[in-house]
Amino acid sequence: MSENKIALAIHGGAGTILKSRMTAELESEYRSGLKTALEAGWKILLNGGTSLDAVEAAVVELENCALFNAGKGAVFTHDGKNEMDASMMDGAAHKAGAVAFVRNVKNPIRLARLVMERTEHILLAGDGANEFAREMNVESAADEYFFTDFRYQQLLEARTRGTVQLDHATDEPQLIEEIAGFKFQVSNEKPETLNLKPEIKNLGTVGAVASDWRGNLAAATSTGGMTNKKFGRIGDTPIVGAGTYADNRTCAVSCTGHGEFFMLAAAAYDVAARMKYKSSSLIEAAEATVDYLRDIGGEGGLIAVDASGNIAAPFNSEGMYRASASADGGMKIEIYR
Amino acid sequence: MSENKIALAIHGGAGTILKSRMTAELESEYRSGLKTALEAGWKILLNGGTSLDAVEAAVVELENCALFNAGKGAVFTHDGKNEMDASMMDGAAHKAGAVAFVRNVKNPIRLARLVMERTEHILLAGDGANEFAREMNVESAADEYFFTDFRYQQLLEARTRGTVQLDHATDEPQLIEEIAGFKFQVSNEKPETLNLKPEIKNLGTVGAVASDWRGNLAAATSTGGMTNKKFGRIGDTPIVGAGTYADNRTCAVSCTGHGEFFMLAAAAYDVAARMKYKSSSLIEAAEATVDYLRDIGGEGGLIAVDASGNIAAPFNSEGMYRASASADGGMKIEIYR
Repeated sequence: MSENKIALAIHGGAGTILKSRMTAELESEYRSGLKTALEAGWKILLNGGTSLDAVEAAVVELENCALFNAGKGAVFTHDGKNEMDASMMDGAAHKAGAVAFVRNVKNPIRLARLVMERTEHILLAGDGANEFAREMNVESAADEYFFTDFRYQQLLEARTRGTVQLDHATDEPQLIEEIAGFKFQVSNEKPETLNLKPEIKNLGTVGAVASDWRGNLAAATSTGGMTNKKFGRIGDTPIVGAGTYADNRTCAVSCTGHGEFFMLAAAAYDVAARMKYKSSSLIEAAEATVDYLRDIGGEGGLIAVDASGNIAAPFNSEGMYRASASADGGMKIEIYR
Repeated sequence: MSENKIALAIHGGAGTILKSRMTAELESEYRSGLKTALEAGWKILLNGGTSLDAVEAAVVELENCALFNAGKGAVFTHDGKNEMDASMMDGAAHKAGAVAFVRNVKNPIRLARLVMERTEHILLAGDGANEFAREMNVESAADEYFFTDFRYQQLLEARTRGTVQLDHATDEPQLIEEIAGFKFQVSNEKPETLNLKPEIKNLGTVGAVASDWRGNLAAATSTGGMTNKKFGRIGDTPIVGAGTYADNRTCAVSCTGHGEFFMLAAAAYDVAARMKYKSSSLIEAAEATVDYLRDIGGEGGLIAVDASGNIAAPFNSEGMYRASASADGGMKIEIYR
């Protein structure tokens, strides 16, 4: 009847994902987290649900998994709080919603959807966005929810040990650790007295893009932002056109990486613009955008789908946590190149 | 030697600018405000200065003029404060800086430039952005600076009388006034007891785009945001790609209008994308973007220049405060179609 084909792609962040730092157990946990999220969204598409519901369900699962920097796994700000950003775009209705700096919201992607559906605005930030969350009665979570997790502590301690060992080899009081294209200062306190809060929690972004039976496209992205961020920095995740974009006529896109470069490139919209104005295919457009990002120094990647069920997931970093499902391509869960 | 030609365009906002509401005296003040800003930037370009310095100087003048909704003329938020947004982009270095929700900063565009030049970030918002302002020692201004002004009061009272008269004709306790594509609730208090603070201050955005002798392009945009805004709404002004964009290879763009639609369209970048991917001329690209905005319901306009000194200033609203100067076209100051 129709040439529309359902497709779903998700990501859990891109960056310097080193095999040497990855244990078999941890890799298996990442894969399991991606699988749970993929299945949540795919089930909805298979049952004739909307792409909006599918990307929301997938991102909610990624937000609920402590391994990814979004929702439960959100990184800590300077004052040890979690401030999260999220955005969603509906490629059929040409509507979008986003939040920046929300605290104690269990699933920021749900709040972004409420901005899209219940307000005439697109981006709400800070105290105002938190007030909106209370007014909408979205599920809240205490500070502890975003922190305590046995498996998570294991990951933290592993990383900490690695960096402190390195630290012994230098005179510098601080060590720079590069993750996801960012340089982070890591304290050289002894492991046993380490304050595990600000500097070294999981990094990245999560996102999902989907095409449903009706050919409607949707994109969703969520992040815990930058660890120890200062000065109220906002990255690309809550920015429509930079971190997230969806338009039925072209594609749905969700980005992850060094946000500033994605903002300069208007990366998510750039994929759509190449398809619209240059007649590039989804794959060509997505790859050209990621190549351009590499050229300007922007490490990261993106996932994209079109209404024909094509999927692209290019990245210029060492790895990107990603998974996809489509009628043609089956299910894939990947981390490295 | 070179085909580069200097050019400068500025705007002071677009929207429902009704001749019937405009007195000869007020129109003359608007024209005078635009002229001052245009000359400030043009002088820099003529003297061989950079497009960055030119757009900054022009926007500073517009921010200092109480008639426009930016800097001194910034509208009031819910709690009677002024929260301002601004952004700047350097088309040569491919860098950008922006601030959202800054308070008591005399010239937010200067702060946006400091974000571009002194940090690795692009967008700083809220308390963090204010902390950055203090650290950079930018000129601050007390709350009163953003309010008291004899001429400004005249404008306010004129508008108030108009709206209160209308109000008498309705049973509704509130009147909806539409300015710049937004609907605003206006209090029906008696003129003599009117609280002139939140609802009815000047609306819009200011901006400037320039091309200098070297063919370097720059764009700058600044706004006082939405009157009586709630929930921490961020519009297109501080969003690179939506309200502001500059790339030497294509154009420099500054937008004004109903911000949400400019965000959905990634309007400023869309002009560049049409030039880059579709080989449209500056004029064709700028007009196509504004036509598209009209099609999706986005009232407003934009100004754009390229490195050959071409200028475009299309809008789909009733008027746009605008002015331009170029070697070929001389000086123009316009308000209506």
